[in-house]
Amino acid sequence: MIVRDLNKARETDRLVKADGWDSTRLLLAGDNMGFSFHITRIAPGTSHVFHYKHHFESVYCVSGEGNIEDLATGKIHQITPGVIYALDQHDKHRLSATSELVLACSFNPPVTGQEVHREDGSYAPVAELA
Amino acid sequence: MIVRDLNKARETDRLVKADGWDSTRLLLAGDNMGFSFHITRIAPGTSHVFHYKHHFESVYCVSGEGNIEDLATGKIHQITPGVIYALDQHDKHRLSATSELVLACSFNPPVTGQEVHREDGSYAPVAELA
Repeated sequence: MIVRDLNKARETDRLVKADGWDSTRLLLAGDNMGFSFHITRIAPGTSHVFHYKHHFESVYCVSGEGNIEDLATGKIHQITPGVIYALDQHDKHRLSATSELVLACSFNPPVTGQEVHREDGSYAPVAELA
Repeated sequence: MIVRDLNKARETDRLVKADGWDSTRLLLAGDNMGFSFHITRIAPGTSHVFHYKHHFESVYCVSGEGNIEDLATGKIHQITPGVIYALDQHDKHRLSATSELVLACSFNPPVTGQEVHREDGSYAPVAELA
């Protein structure tokens, strides 16, 4: 059994900081769960384009408000606590925070912790990191 | 892209009720994400023995307080908001809520929605449901 605490994990290299967001990787590929699990915070007033070409991601809103735009269709979905979105088509999207968003994110395949966001908004597949 | 809302999902058969807990399956196997994602509520003052012999489960505490006892070792871990536990050894455990626990749960393999909790605290593997 693995037990971890977000507040302690934020003091370690599990916390990844970027411009306008950060993400704490509570479970990674090395934990052998078959998925990874992250708590991500989006700063209020910021927007970000992500495109996980090689991963399926679901995002559950724990707190905060914002919206997600499906960049293939232009459709905008409001995000409030209790809303989940799942990028089952590796959907390219723009995520915007009105107030600070706290999001619980699951990834399949699991993120290894070695990925970097590329200019196209994707994470590289594991094979390209080897 | 799939978008769902917990409050709406609770009015559908995505909500499964049991004695002392309920669980709303926001993502199931049929969503083809490779994991399922549930928001589970444990009633205050209740304890439950679970043993997912055929699934890996991670549980992130969104709100509430309680504890988890590893029934193999007797070790008890406190659960507060921000704590995650991952049953990477299919650990048999007792989950107890002091106040209402709201938990974000990821399962691999994904739950189909057809499982029932068996007397031994497990979910049947998919093969046994066929």
